[in-house]
Amino acid sequence: MKFCADCGGSVSIRTPPGDHLPRYVCDRCGTVHYENPRLIVGCVPEHEGRILLCKRAIEPRRGYWTVPAGFMENGETLQQAAARESREEALAAVEIGSLLSIVHVLPAHQVHVYFRARLAGGGFGVGPESLAVELVHPASIPWSEIAFPSTEFALRRYLEDRAAAREPYHFAELTRRFAGAAE
Amino acid sequence: MKFCADCGGSVSIRTPPGDHLPRYVCDRCGTVHYENPRLIVGCVPEHEGRILLCKRAIEPRRGYWTVPAGFMENGETLQQAAARESREEALAAVEIGSLLSIVHVLPAHQVHVYFRARLAGGGFGVGPESLAVELVHPASIPWSEIAFPSTEFALRRYLEDRAAAREPYHFAELTRRFAGAAE
Repeated sequence: MKFCADCGGSVSIRTPPGDHLPRYVCDRCGTVHYENPRLIVGCVPEHEGRILLCKRAIEPRRGYWTVPAGFMENGETLQQAAARESREEALAAVEIGSLLSIVHVLPAHQVHVYFRARLAGGGFGVGPESLAVELVHPASIPWSEIAFPSTEFALRRYLEDRAAAREPYHFAELTRRFAGAAE
Repeated sequence: MKFCADCGGSVSIRTPPGDHLPRYVCDRCGTVHYENPRLIVGCVPEHEGRILLCKRAIEPRRGYWTVPAGFMENGETLQQAAARESREEALAAVEIGSLLSIVHVLPAHQVHVYFRARLAGGGFGVGPESLAVELVHPASIPWSEIAFPSTEFALRRYLEDRAAAREPYHFAELTRRFAGAAE
């Protein structure tokens, strides 16, 4: 951030009076511009024992596999965001279920929230942000080609919990944005 | 938003190519400035059957009661944010427990996340953002003076769950920012 979104003046980084952290503060009008973590929301859609995976057509991690997920928009709930991303990326109507995982991706300033989901009807297609969309048997999940650690975390917890016939939620904390390992 | 934070040019609201929603887009450099929901994080700290409440010293809702909560900062987890707010507002060291509630405050573009918590040791004080901080018996909670609907929602679910000796999580959706009613 170099300029004030309110007045166009230059901004500098300093700690406002009464605050405890450095912020972007406008040198001209004094407006403080806060920056906060953003929410990424997705789901693990299942249909007849198989998981819906999307091959990413966009960066970051183009060509790698993920489940439907993306930035939460203003005016929607977490569940609505997860369902919207499934429509957009996989042309899929999903029924959002229980909370699966919340992963803090600290260096990216992001919180990734995943839900369990059912692929209603079983129909899907390849959305504009995907190169391919497939229903994959758990034994065939391409673990070395999963796009993000939070995706791998959600998928592994989903399958473990399904095997144990339970639906808890899981927290995790990641200090790396991209990695082969889940945690 | 009137000016581009990157180049200082004027911005206008339009839907970028390939996008599906209107965004703030810089007329000069083309940067798209996304706006996403912000996370408010707090907890319901309990000590020997009583709940830690703070009387707000700042707007909005100055003079009304709440539990420790505030904007999540970059670089911290939800649990760390909830514990930090307890330190700041109530000078209290808390042990963060299970997930209590996630409330979508749609008109405010906020997601409010609350945890169960224990007041470690029982010590507390009045932080700079509070007019008063008290350990309150559930029967004495001033329901008509609770600051935010999401606070009331968290408190009511907390007490119901405690009475039933269970710790589930709860979702809610609010279409009003301030209200006397919980839902």
